Amino acid sequence: MPNYKVIYFDIRGRAELIRLIFAHAGQKFEDSRIVPEEWLKLKPTTPFGQVPALQIDGKMYAQTIAIANYLAREFGLYGKTSLDALEIDQIVCLIQDFLNATLKAKREEDETKKADLLKKYVEEEVPKYLGFLEGLLKKNGTGYFVGSGTTLADIAVYDFIFNLNENHSGVLETFPLIKGHKEKIASLPNIKAYLDVRKPTPY
Amino acid sequence: MPNYKVIYFDIRGRAELIRLIFAHAGQKFEDSRIVPEEWLKLKPTTPFGQVPALQIDGKMYAQTIAIANYLAREFGLYGKTSLDALEIDQIVCLIQDFLNATLKAKREEDETKKADLLKKYVEEEVPKYLGFLEGLLKKNGTGYFVGSGTTLADIAVYDFIFNLNENHSGVLETFPLIKGHKEKIASLPNIKAYLDVRKPTPY
Ligand SMILES: N[C@@H](CCC(=O)N[C@@H](CS)C(=O)NCC(=O)O)C(=O)O
Ligand SMILES: N[C@@H](CCC(=O)N[C@@H](CS)C(=O)NCC(=O)O)C(=O)O
Repeated sequence: MPNYKVIYFDIRGRAELIRLIFAHAGQKFEDSRIVPEEWLKLKPTTPFGQVPALQIDGKMYAQTIAIANYLAREFGLYGKTSLDALEIDQIVCLIQDFLNATLKAKREEDETKKADLLKKYVEEEVPKYLGFLEGLLKKNGTGYFVGSGTTLADIAVYDFIFNLNENHSGVLETFPLIKGHKEKIASLPNIKAYLDVRKPTPY
Repeated sequence: MPNYKVIYFDIRGRAELIRLIFAHAGQKFEDSRIVPEEWLKLKPTTPFGQVPALQIDGKMYAQTIAIANYLAREFGLYGKTSLDALEIDQIVCLIQDFLNATLKAKREEDETKKADLLKKYVEEEVPKYLGFLEGLLKKNGTGYFVGSGTTLADIAVYDFIFNLNENHSGVLETFPLIKGHKEKIASLPNIKAYLDVRKPTPY
C-alpha cells in the first residue's frame, strides 16, 4: 500500500470527504493539519496553490474530487459498472453545486445582500437540492444512492448533509430518506469508529 | 452501440465538451438544441432541472462532468492507469474552477463591482490559471496534458481555451505551450472535421 498524507487546514472543510473515504476503507493515512502561518510557505508547493492535497508516496495531487475519485477506484467505492460510476459522479457533481450555492450565500460581503441570499438559500436552494437527493434515494430504493452498497456518492452526500444539519438543525425533518441515510452511513463500523474520535472543529 | 442524445441550448456552453468527445471518438449522437420556449416544459424531466443532459438509450443523465467522465471511460480517453485518471480529473476540476471564476466576473449585476471583478479576472485569475496549465504541459513534455496521447483533459482544456481566446484575443501570446496545444487538438482529424462544420454561436 502506498504512503498517504492528506494536507489541509485544521477543519473538516473540503478535506473531510477524503478523510472519510480513508476511514471507511480502513486505510491509515497521515492527517496533516496545517496552521495558517505554515500555509503561505506550503502554498507554492501545491499543484494549484490550494488544499486539500494528497501526497501519494511523496507525490502531491490536488483537487478534492479528483482525489476522492482516485480513492474510490482504489477502494472499490465506484460501483460495479461504468453506468454506476456515471450515477455516482452525477451525485458528487450535484453536491458540488449544492456546496457552491452554500458558499455563494455565506461568502457575500454586503450585509443586506447576504441576508437576501441566505433567505433564498434556506427557502429555495436547500429544499431544491434535498428534494433531488430524497428523490434519488426513493428511486434507488436500497437505502444507498447507487446500487445496493456504500459508494463514493453515499460518503459525499453524508459529509455534506452532516454540515448542513449542523448549521440548519431540523432541516432533515421533511426528508426522512436522507435522514435515515445519514444515520446509516454514520453507523457503518469504520465510519462510526472514525466519528467517535474525530477532532471537533466548527466546520 | 447505445443511442446517444445530447440535450442543451443552441450554444456551445457546457455541452460543447460532450459534443467534442463524441466528435473525437467518431461516435454519432443526436444534437438536440432546445429553444427557450421548450425549456420550461423540458426542465422538470431532467434529473436536476438543468442541462446539459445525455440520454443513453432513452435514459436521461445530468451533470456535464459526470457525462464527460462516462464518455471518456467508454471511448478510452481516461488514461492508462488509475493515477493517469487522477491527473486527468485534477485538470478537469481545475477547468471547472477556472469556469467558475469566469462566470463570477461575468455574471455580477452591479456594474461598478463587475468592472472591478473583470479587471481582477483578466489581471490575476486568467494568468494564474494559464500559468498552471502551461506548467502542466511543460512538466509532462509530450504536448498532451497526461501521458502521450489525447485524453479527456486535453479536450476539456481545449474547449475552455477556445472560448477564452475568443473573448480575450491575444491572451495566449505569453503561453506558447497552451497555444500549441490548442492548435494541435483543433487539428486532430475528427475534431477538425467537427470544427469545420460546427454551428457558429456567440458562446
Ligand atoms: N476546487 C478545489 C478548491 C480548493 C479550495 O478552494 N481550497 C481552499 C480551501 S477550502 C484553499 O486552499 N484556500 C487557500 C488559498 O487559496 O490560499 C478543490 O475542490 O480542491
Ligand atoms: N453543474 C451543472 C450545471 C448545469 C447548469 O448550470 N446548467 C444551466 C445551463 S449552463 C441551466 O440548465 N440553466 C437553466 C436553468 O437552470 O433553468 C453541470 O455542469 O451540468
